[in-house]
Amino acid sequence: MALASALTLLESSKAEHMQLMDEVIENILPHTGNSLRIGITGVPGVGKSTFIEALAREVFQNEENKLAVLSIDPSSPISKGSILGDKTRMNELSLHPNAFVRPSPSSSHLGGVNRSTRESILLCEAAGYNIVLVETVGVGQSETAVHAMTDFFLLLMLAGAGDQLQGIKRGIMELTDAMVITKADGGNELKADRAKGEYTSALHLFPQRENNWTPQVFTTSSLEAKGIDVVWKEIDKFNRWSISNGWKEENRKHQLISSFEEQIQNVLLHQLQNKPNFKEKYESTLNRVVSKELSAHRAAESFIALFFTA
Amino acid sequence: MALASALTLLESSKAEHMQLMDEVIENILPHTGNSLRIGITGVPGVGKSTFIEALAREVFQNEENKLAVLSIDPSSPISKGSILGDKTRMNELSLHPNAFVRPSPSSSHLGGVNRSTRESILLCEAAGYNIVLVETVGVGQSETAVHAMTDFFLLLMLAGAGDQLQGIKRGIMELTDAMVITKADGGNELKADRAKGEYTSALHLFPQRENNWTPQVFTTSSLEAKGIDVVWKEIDKFNRWSISNGWKEENRKHQLISSFEEQIQNVLLHQLQNKPNFKEKYESTLNRVVSKELSAHRAAESFIALFFTA
Repeated sequence: MALASALTLLESSKAEHMQLMDEVIENILPHTGNSLRIGITGVPGVGKSTFIEALAREVFQNEENKLAVLSIDPSSPISKGSILGDKTRMNELSLHPNAFVRPSPSSSHLGGVNRSTRESILLCEAAGYNIVLVETVGVGQSETAVHAMTDFFLLLMLAGAGDQLQGIKRGIMELTDAMVITKADGGNELKADRAKGEYTSALHLFPQRENNWTPQVFTTSSLEAKGIDVVWKEIDKFNRWSISNGWKEENRKHQLISSFEEQIQNVLLHQLQNKPNFKEKYESTLNRVVSKELSAHRAAESFIALFFTA
Repeated sequence: MALASALTLLESSKAEHMQLMDEVIENILPHTGNSLRIGITGVPGVGKSTFIEALAREVFQNEENKLAVLSIDPSSPISKGSILGDKTRMNELSLHPNAFVRPSPSSSHLGGVNRSTRESILLCEAAGYNIVLVETVGVGQSETAVHAMTDFFLLLMLAGAGDQLQGIKRGIMELTDAMVITKADGGNELKADRAKGEYTSALHLFPQRENNWTPQVFTTSSLEAKGIDVVWKEIDKFNRWSISNGWKEENRKHQLISSFEEQIQNVLLHQLQNKPNFKEKYESTLNRVVSKELSAHRAAESFIALFFTA
C-alpha cells in the first residue's frame, strides 16, 4: 500500500508533492538496485498480458521471488490513443501475494515518462521486489527508453500473417536480448517454428554485441504453458552471467550517466520556462523565426541570452 | 559549386566556420522555402537509389525543375555502420545539369544531424532547387527527423520474403503520406500487388490524419520504369492540394517551432559545456549519482545551480 501511494505521489505535479517525492527517492536510494530489471515489448495483440502472467507462474516457483510489473503507456504522439489504459489486465497476477501490478505513472510534470518510470523501478526495489518487469507497447519510441532502464530486454513477436503490421525495425532488434514468438499453439506451431528460424537468421546479421551476449529466439504458448519455463531459465541465466562478468554493473552505470544527462536537459528547460516573461519573449523570438528574419539557431542563441549569461 | 562549398562548410566544427555559416544562413533566409521538400525512407536493399533516379526522370520531364538529393546517414548508435557511405551512388542522376546529389553533412558539432540537414535544405533552396529530396535509411530514428523537415514523406517497401527484416513500425506508418512497393517486376508483380492490398488495409487502421490526406499505396518497377509517373503525379497532387488549403504553410510553421525548440536545448547544453571547470564538476556530481548518494534529478539540479542562477 505504501508503494501504491508512493507511485500515486509520483504522478502529482504539485510543487510540494514533487519536493516530497524528491526526498523519498533520495532516502530509498541505498535500498535500490538489488533486482533484475526486465523490459518487455511487443505490439498490441501479441499477448503480452497472458505471457507476463505465464512468466510470473515460473517466477513464483521460487517462493522468495517478488515480482513488480509496471506498464508504460506511451500513447502515440499522433493518434494519442491509450493502449494500455485497461487497468483490469492481469487479474490473476494482481491477486498473487508476491506480485505488484500497476501502470507506470504517466508524466504530468517535466522530466517525463522516463523519469517517472525509473523512479517507479527504484520504489519497487526499495519495497522489496527483486524482479521488476517494465512492459511497453511496441509503438513509438518507448522501447529505447525501456531498454535504457532495464537489464534484460525481451521482444515478443507473432508468427505469420500480419508481419507487416507487427514488423519491427532493425533498431529494436539491435536492443533485444531474447525474442519470443508467442501463440505457438492451436495449429500455429509450424508457422511459429518457421518464424523462429527466420528471426534467428535475422539476428545473425547484426554485429557482435558490446556485452558479447548472443540473443536467442524462443517459441511459447501462454495458453498451453509451453516454453515459458525455457524463457525464464534464459533470463535467469543472463542475470547470473551478467553479474559474474561485471556487465550488469557496468551497464547500470552507463544507464545512470544517461539518466543524469537527461535530467540536466530537463532541469535547464524547466528553469528557462520559469523565468519572468518567458512566454512573451518566446513568442516574440519565435515570430522572428517564422518571418524568416532569424535562423532557428541564431534565434535560440539570442533567446537564451535574454535569460542566462553565457 | 558554391552550394557544394557551403555544404562542406556546414561540416566544419571550427568556430570561425560556424560563425560564417550562421551569417550565410541568415542572409539566404529570404530566398528559402520555395520548394517541395520530399522525405524518402526504406531499408537497405529496397532500391532507394534506383527509385530516386527513376523519379528524377519524371521530375525532369518539366525542364524548369531543379532537383537536389540529400542523403542522411544516421549510422546506427550500436553498430556504428555507415550505410549510405558509398558516394558513387546515383551516378546517372549526378551528371544531370539540373540535379545536385550529396550526402548530407554529418554532424561534427553540437546541434546535430538535424540542424545540418535543415540548413542544407535551405542552402539548396537558395541555390534555386525547387525540389529537395531528403533520403534516409530505415534504421534508427532518422525517419522522424526527416519527417519533421519535409512536406511529403514517402516510405519504400519490398514485397514478400524478408518482411520481418524490413518490417516497419506503426509509428513510421503514421508518418507516411504514400507507400511504394518497389521491385514489382521479374515475376514479382503478384507478390507486390498482394503487399499493396495488405498495406492499404493496414493504413486504414490508423485514425484520420490532422491534414485529412489519405495515404495511398503504389507498386513500381524502377527497372522497367513502371508506376513511377503515378507516384510523381501523387506527390505533385499533394503539393498543389496542400498549398491551396494552407496545410503546407501551417505544417512548415510547426516544423519551424520544433526546430527553434530543439536549438534552444542545444544552445543551453553548449553553453553549459563551455563553462569553466565544467568537466571536473560534471565528474564529481556524476560520482555522487553512481554511488547512490544523489538521485539523477537532484544531481542535475545541484549541478546546474553551480553554473546558472535559477
